[in-house]
Amino acid sequence: MSNTFGQRFRITTAGESHGKSISVTVDGCPAGIKLQAEDIQKELDRRKPGQSKVTTQRKEEDLVEIHSGVFEDTTTGASIMMLIRNTNFDTSKYEPIRDLFRPNSADYTYWKKYGIRDWRGGGRASARETAARVAAGAIAKKILELENIVVIGYCLEIGGIKAESIDYNEIEKNPVRCPDKNSAKKMEERILEVKSQGDSVGGLVEIIAKNVPPGLGEPTFGKLSAKLMEALGSIGAVDCVENGAGMKVKDMLGSECNDQMIMDKGRMRFLTNNSGGIQGGISNGEDIVLRIAVKPTPSIAKEQKTIDIHGKEATIKIEGKHDPCICPRIVPVAESMVALVLVDYLLLAEGANYEVRKWLR
Amino acid sequence: MSNTFGQRFRITTAGESHGKSISVTVDGCPAGIKLQAEDIQKELDRRKPGQSKVTTQRKEEDLVEIHSGVFEDTTTGASIMMLIRNTNFDTSKYEPIRDLFRPNSADYTYWKKYGIRDWRGGGRASARETAARVAAGAIAKKILELENIVVIGYCLEIGGIKAESIDYNEIEKNPVRCPDKNSAKKMEERILEVKSQGDSVGGLVEIIAKNVPPGLGEPTFGKLSAKLMEALGSIGAVDCVENGAGMKVKDMLGSECNDQMIMDKGRMRFLTNNSGGIQGGISNGEDIVLRIAVKPTPSIAKEQKTIDIHGKEATIKIEGKHDPCICPRIVPVAESMVALVLVDYLLLAEGANYEVRKWLR
Amino acid sequence: MSNTFGQRFRITTAGESHGKSISVTVDGCPAGIKLQAEDIQKELDRRKPGQSKVTTQRKEEDLVEIHSGVFEDTTTGASIMMLIRNTNFDTSKYEPIRDLFRPNSADYTYWKKYGIRDWRGGGRASARETAARVAAGAIAKKILELENIVVIGYCLEIGGIKAESIDYNEIEKNPVRCPDKNSAKKMEERILEVKSQGDSVGGLVEIIAKNVPPGLGEPTFGKLSAKLMEALGSIGAVDCVENGAGMKVKDMLGSECNDQMIMDKGRMRFLTNNSGGIQGGISNGEDIVLRIAVKPTPSIAKEQKTIDIHGKEATIKIEGKHDPCICPRIVPVAESMVALVLVDYLLLAEGANYEVRKWLR
Amino acid sequence: MSNTFGQRFRITTAGESHGKSISVTVDGCPAGIKLQAEDIQKELDRRKPGQSKVTTQRKEEDLVEIHSGVFEDTTTGASIMMLIRNTNFDTSKYEPIRDLFRPNSADYTYWKKYGIRDWRGGGRASARETAARVAAGAIAKKILELENIVVIGYCLEIGGIKAESIDYNEIEKNPVRCPDKNSAKKMEERILEVKSQGDSVGGLVEIIAKNVPPGLGEPTFGKLSAKLMEALGSIGAVDCVENGAGMKVKDMLGSECNDQMIMDKGRMRFLTNNSGGIQGGISNGEDIVLRIAVKPTPSIAKEQKTIDIHGKEATIKIEGKHDPCICPRIVPVAESMVALVLVDYLLLAEGANYEVRKWLR
Repeated sequence: MSNTFGQRFRITTAGESHGKSISVTVDGCPAGIKLQAEDIQKELDRRKPGQSKVTTQRKEEDLVEIHSGVFEDTTTGASIMMLIRNTNFDTSKYEPIRDLFRPNSADYTYWKKYGIRDWRGGGRASARETAARVAAGAIAKKILELENIVVIGYCLEIGGIKAESIDYNEIEKNPVRCPDKNSAKKMEERILEVKSQGDSVGGLVEIIAKNVPPGLGEPTFGKLSAKLMEALGSIGAVDCVENGAGMKVKDMLGSECNDQMIMDKGRMRFLTNNSGGIQGGISNGEDIVLRIAVKPTPSIAKEQKTIDIHGKEATIKIEGKHDPCICPRIVPVAESMVALVLVDYLLLAEGANYEVRKWLR
Repeated sequence: MSNTFGQRFRITTAGESHGKSISVTVDGCPAGIKLQAEDIQKELDRRKPGQSKVTTQRKEEDLVEIHSGVFEDTTTGASIMMLIRNTNFDTSKYEPIRDLFRPNSADYTYWKKYGIRDWRGGGRASARETAARVAAGAIAKKILELENIVVIGYCLEIGGIKAESIDYNEIEKNPVRCPDKNSAKKMEERILEVKSQGDSVGGLVEIIAKNVPPGLGEPTFGKLSAKLMEALGSIGAVDCVENGAGMKVKDMLGSECNDQMIMDKGRMRFLTNNSGGIQGGISNGEDIVLRIAVKPTPSIAKEQKTIDIHGKEATIKIEGKHDPCICPRIVPVAESMVALVLVDYLLLAEGANYEVRKWLR
Repeated sequence: MSNTFGQRFRITTAGESHGKSISVTVDGCPAGIKLQAEDIQKELDRRKPGQSKVTTQRKEEDLVEIHSGVFEDTTTGASIMMLIRNTNFDTSKYEPIRDLFRPNSADYTYWKKYGIRDWRGGGRASARETAARVAAGAIAKKILELENIVVIGYCLEIGGIKAESIDYNEIEKNPVRCPDKNSAKKMEERILEVKSQGDSVGGLVEIIAKNVPPGLGEPTFGKLSAKLMEALGSIGAVDCVENGAGMKVKDMLGSECNDQMIMDKGRMRFLTNNSGGIQGGISNGEDIVLRIAVKPTPSIAKEQKTIDIHGKEATIKIEGKHDPCICPRIVPVAESMVALVLVDYLLLAEGANYEVRKWLR
Repeated sequence: MSNTFGQRFRITTAGESHGKSISVTVDGCPAGIKLQAEDIQKELDRRKPGQSKVTTQRKEEDLVEIHSGVFEDTTTGASIMMLIRNTNFDTSKYEPIRDLFRPNSADYTYWKKYGIRDWRGGGRASARETAARVAAGAIAKKILELENIVVIGYCLEIGGIKAESIDYNEIEKNPVRCPDKNSAKKMEERILEVKSQGDSVGGLVEIIAKNVPPGLGEPTFGKLSAKLMEALGSIGAVDCVENGAGMKVKDMLGSECNDQMIMDKGRMRFLTNNSGGIQGGISNGEDIVLRIAVKPTPSIAKEQKTIDIHGKEATIKIEGKHDPCICPRIVPVAESMVALVLVDYLLLAEGANYEVRKWLR
């Protein structure tokens, strides 16, 4: 199931960084959703390379073609195949390192598993595959809109610099997608400094889902929190996923950590949100809060030790246009994964009370 | 799929804390594995309540019955149903709070989803369901043994007290499952102190899988790391999952974070293990390293604000025998989830090279 | 997935004919369904052995125990585990033939696949596993009732004798479950005649689902008809499955086979029902009509050629209490499989129009 | 899961008859399989329209493009996306009937389910989607070749005319894919006669899989026979699926139906093959034998009664280029479905003995 994600709203992706195209087939999308190529393109443009000085300078238009499942700008209930052509790729810069395993890439592990070496960039393991996630996520967001659910992502930290305040309106106004104007400036400077050293830097991205109704999720193995952790953890650069208070819970007392309940204008609410909107694997009506720690991009110009496929030690310097910090571009990818999970659970509503089930969708 | 976990080695669990039994059906277990009730019981005994002063004082023998799939102490390839009877439960102490939502439990969210209130303890959301995970995990461990793979879990931190050294031999010798004898003592004291205050405390649990061959895992959405995050994130008290360097990657440079490669006695190895044994979603032959931040037990004797099912504000004190710290008992559960994922991927080997496939299992 | 059936309403079964129990875990059952052990028992009694002279004389009470997922006679949305103990089994009669492959059984093929021989009766391949299907099917029928959908099965032919008329009220009044009183008598005689010769006989079973609303089903690979064929084809003795006109379509012209449409009292209807209620994999509102050709029971007293596990030729006579015709007892099993599929698709409603989805459940 | 088929070797298809393309993504294909576009094209050419007088006269080149998952003519283990552009479609002939439900099509049922009407030909329900099945089936056949397994399909009956002999060499030499030269001639005449009357005709197609090793398949719900019935039953025009003796078993005695065992040149064999190569859901080493009854094409020029989407009665004559008999073109589709199932089970080998597992792939 490695290239398929979701149970009811399922996406199946394909495509290598240096192949003909990146594609995604969405199955299980309800009929009757208004959908145009622009809805997809808008999100792809947030992910595409070459947006600013802090991202890779490689140019790629990432234009989406909708091949099926949409008729007269409306989904028909059929599977939706979307395709993004790879137009700007150049395998020549990979020629010199075709036999070398790039550190922290999937080069070595794919070679061990598949016994085959697609040396042209990352092949299937390239972050380029996330374009397919964003295209599918754009459809998921359209469905969430119908339920008034919004998914917002931003960079909370980059290279040790933290956002000190959260203003959603600032996020898309700066190239690092930081909700704090001042910190954004510093983050940008930090990234350019690191870049000039031929290095890269990591960060912390937060994703919030607002207006998720209580009752969404599943018990036991199907916990909404667990599925969100898997979804976000499946993004290449992610080494840690937090929900709610996250790592902090290890140092908390029960009396601090528990979210006590109150009535607020006739609505059942919580005094705090350490649970990050999910209890027992099911949404409680508060904001769903997630954070991911993002690795520094592994492709760096600095010299590193490595070996080749014949087991000979060597050094490597990875030239080419790489992101000095992947965080700003990971934001739409992370949002997409969260949106995909939410739509999936919205359509699933498994085991829900027979009456509840009727309104839940 | 909420009560089923796994693709090739699949477990399906059932049972409420105050119902007749907890059960698990394992499907996809290879035929020919030696298996006796004692193999299961040994692991269940590590999870069962009443083991020491730092766990709940409730007594429950948790005896396993193997109902099917095993003939003459050998698995037959048929589905294996195992059952653990609930013998020591008392619903009377839940009577006074039957209409109150216990803070940080699944009471409210289950009620919203299912429209039904099983007020007897946690019902299906009780941590008691993890007994089924451990029973299934015991079988998974038997299979991993055949490949020489070992899964080891322990408490790295409890209530702010850290293990300063790692000695695997110490883990099962102290009641907090800490690999550091001295820290273990302090952790125990800290738990008893917090317990005496009617409170509870969280911690950090680490799980290591040793001798996993390179090439195990899947690309894209099926990353071994993502699946392990889901698996561990599906344990009730887990709010954060780390792989390898985990949260620390947010502050690292690429040149620090990248695991450079060398030849070591003819074997391809890595100078560091920030990747925690997984690159591009596939094992690289180094130790697989995972950590989970565990919440303090929500059931505490301290008075807390809450509401009842009719929307009336109230206060609640949760009496009864609860774990002041769930970390020591979560260790075998976390190990089980990791073992289940590893066996599943071992049997899956999806897309692997046709020749590689032959030896991989 | 071999022991799990269904996507949204999923059943996982376990148990061998001579093991401790037969069990089934139902996952995805909506909360709030009224359910008592009697609802299950009633259906199990229709399948249990020893009902009449035409079935096996082995006695087995087949009493169901509901272990979880039901609280105060109502489903809670949790997984439902049900267990039927094997009380009356005697492995001694299998001792003499423990090394012989019984013709048309799964003895040889299981041995080739699993490398293990559970010689005690059919083991997991025994028709006894269908008790689990019937227990789960009883829950499915309870849910279908809420939608006014009824599933009716009966023997259309046994040993060449055909039902000449269809009167649903007759079915449960005769031991062969034939809807034609007169043919029932002849079928009964035919079975007893064959039985006296140490032989067995096959037949044709028809299953009708009434009041299925139009719009149930899925396109392409998920066709309702395909899933029903799989469901019925998974019953051990079934070698042929028909939907609607079935085998007859091979000799028909398009102008004969096509079901033309008319308006009937304001409702869209069809002049004929050659489609058997399903078009393009989706229900059209007419009766869903299925038929299965059922093999004669392979366990017969007549001498047959066979070989043993060492490759030595031998002859075998299978003693013991076996059904001379399995058709009457297959009726509740076939009904159950159809009910399970219908409930699954009812809860699935995948891709359905967002508005339609709301009322469809 | 409606547009995905398979568990280990999974295909996901998309595309409408009058949309941009038909596509299929194959996931789980082992790395290292030699694969070129010609391997796919060869099979697509057997299915494509316009091959002869007895098929539709519509011309469509059906050229396949492989977009991903193949590098240097070898599968890499990544998902394989293939695309077939729709080049020759003309929606104008559907304009006059855009509000009419075509009898025996999916027009009415899709409209009920999706609330949307894609009136351009069959939309997603068009037999055109089977091109994607054949493209994926071609890869499956390549893998089966490595195991020496061959899948052969042919027309056994068309419009009442039967093949009297089976000569595999004849099949591809005549336009009706009949293994009997003489019957082929008569079948062709029969089809042309029916076509001249503006009508269509059905038939019976047989599919044989040779050299399948014993031990392939799964128990209970995962029976190889059940999965093959589902696979073949998912082809639009199929109303009946038989395995082995099929429908005939209803009239057989146990002593006639049972396949007795013998030793044949040191190999365990069966005297007859009423089981059609499958016992207890698992292959027994004999030929796997399947038959499907195929409906006459519903699109006929003869006038038929129907209604429109507003519930008004009307008559309809379906002009355009339609197959007077779909059987010859269904042959490669049916072969593909059988090949897909066999590869899936070959890679699955679930629960197989740990030692057996090693050689089974």
